[in-house]
Amino acid sequence: MITKKLLLTKRPQGLPTKDCWKLEEEALPKLNPGQVLIQQHYISLDPAMRGWMNDSRSYIPPVALGEVMRAGSVGQVIEVNGKTPFQEGDYVTGWGGVQTHCITNGEGFYPINPKWADLPHFIGSLGMPGMTAYFGILQVGEIQEGDSVLVSGAAGAVGSVVGQIAKIKGCKVVGIAGGPDKCTYLMKELGFDGAIDYKSENLKSGIKKYCPKGIDVYFDNVGGDILDTALIFLRKKARVVICGAISQYNEQNYQGPKNYLSLLVNRASMRGMVVLDYAAQYREAMQHIAQWMAEGKLKSKVTIYEGIEEFYPTFLRLFNGDKLGKLILKL
Amino acid sequence: MITKKLLLTKRPQGLPTKDCWKLEEEALPKLNPGQVLIQQHYISLDPAMRGWMNDSRSYIPPVALGEVMRAGSVGQVIEVNGKTPFQEGDYVTGWGGVQTHCITNGEGFYPINPKWADLPHFIGSLGMPGMTAYFGILQVGEIQEGDSVLVSGAAGAVGSVVGQIAKIKGCKVVGIAGGPDKCTYLMKELGFDGAIDYKSENLKSGIKKYCPKGIDVYFDNVGGDILDTALIFLRKKARVVICGAISQYNEQNYQGPKNYLSLLVNRASMRGMVVLDYAAQYREAMQHIAQWMAEGKLKSKVTIYEGIEEFYPTFLRLFNGDKLGKLILKL
Repeated sequence: MITKKLLLTKRPQGLPTKDCWKLEEEALPKLNPGQVLIQQHYISLDPAMRGWMNDSRSYIPPVALGEVMRAGSVGQVIEVNGKTPFQEGDYVTGWGGVQTHCITNGEGFYPINPKWADLPHFIGSLGMPGMTAYFGILQVGEIQEGDSVLVSGAAGAVGSVVGQIAKIKGCKVVGIAGGPDKCTYLMKELGFDGAIDYKSENLKSGIKKYCPKGIDVYFDNVGGDILDTALIFLRKKARVVICGAISQYNEQNYQGPKNYLSLLVNRASMRGMVVLDYAAQYREAMQHIAQWMAEGKLKSKVTIYEGIEEFYPTFLRLFNGDKLGKLILKL
Repeated sequence: MITKKLLLTKRPQGLPTKDCWKLEEEALPKLNPGQVLIQQHYISLDPAMRGWMNDSRSYIPPVALGEVMRAGSVGQVIEVNGKTPFQEGDYVTGWGGVQTHCITNGEGFYPINPKWADLPHFIGSLGMPGMTAYFGILQVGEIQEGDSVLVSGAAGAVGSVVGQIAKIKGCKVVGIAGGPDKCTYLMKELGFDGAIDYKSENLKSGIKKYCPKGIDVYFDNVGGDILDTALIFLRKKARVVICGAISQYNEQNYQGPKNYLSLLVNRASMRGMVVLDYAAQYREAMQHIAQWMAEGKLKSKVTIYEGIEEFYPTFLRLFNGDKLGKLILKL
């Protein structure tokens, strides 16, 4: 049996070029005792992948050159050898990487129940992005009923779930997204109270319009000018959740939030988060999100492209914004 | 009786020039019923005063043009009319402003016990800077025994108390200050574990040397490049206390901390504080600090210049660093 794997071959400067990776084919080796073979169905594309390509200190080690590109995935166990955590036929999710098959002892993989939702959602709203949104807005953002919540990257995999959870918890929710289609989606389909198209609207005016009394929680996925503008509108004791900074990942020099003294004036806080810290509570969060999805309170949009050969153009959509909700590669 | 008062006459661009203020003399008016007359002995000079000169939204309204320049002070009640919170002879501290006398109904003034310490300390370690240090490092920084604490502006009125309280609480304390004299003072007199002269030493190397495992708490009084460098060294769940940003107050464009994503990587937080929020607990804090001072555990340095006419050159010392500990004008 032939397997295809995408190896990291070069560290990018700025926006990654196609030659940062190389697709390799090889015959699948035999399983050692204790190993399972996972046939991967869906690969998760996340902004965080850009960070893992840098050779710098972060919350997890960088992907080494020559290694399979790290990615979340969902797939099915099609072979086991000896005593393993999974059985043939089990559906699992974990760090499968960008490859058609994954051989593993099961560490870092979790069994999933495909009755809960379609498989792609297990790397979307029921996967890392959903977990990030759940713990980010509830435990880091500490939202309270009645809070005014602003979220950037609002039509993305994390942002869209952040906003919907905040709505479920009784907050006023305003999203920032790029383009009229995304904004219409946020307001008409997801029930946001406001949506600001940062590409064509004035962000300050938009925030003023929807949050005349300011913001209690700002959930930031983008950094840059949008973060800086949001800081102007913090209310007393506001919380800024630093989840990501997609506008900066391909920049050589990061832009710092020059309005950070708004934290002082407003006794506000800015806190970073990494979803991996909440692993012990994933299951509970998944149950909540799955239930909200079943009740129609939380909608989960996925944008799916097909074929490992399509990895590069699909990956670029993370940064040019050409997608809605969770971006996924089907194998 | 003649009184002298310094009025704000112009809003500064950048570093304030002498003509931003005007000294006026006038005959003291008679007290209305319910008023007290305070003879001011010491005026507090604080970096925050620069912010109050701007016509912008902050934690307190700006000083209006034509108004007495806002400042903390300590003085003695020399006359009362009718029912007032104070009696003749009482020593008080409060927002007396830059003037030789202050007529007030007593609001915002607190009685002090001159047996606790020399009068200047009541606008230093027992005043706003001391309160800022106390609540900032204990309640915002949430220091724990064994933490590595880095403080900037470490030889100043706030920083020196921050560091000494952290030492009392069993932390390792490293200060950043400008010039060898200040660094010697921090290590030899205040017992800091390390001191880095940012004017002549490499800050990164200094932090690495004294905090090889990184920083648990960074208490920032200065902003700019120093904040940015400190962020590189945050440990997991580190706390950054944003107390001030003296390097930025005279800048037209604030410099944002471009390494702020260290908050994400390290699940760290950056929180702003304003001492006024802790007024209900001032008395308790003063008792602790006074006791530490009496026990010789906390040293309180003041730099005193004399005469209201000397306000401007003295004020400039806040920004050129030419002083040690608390900067005070004696009237």
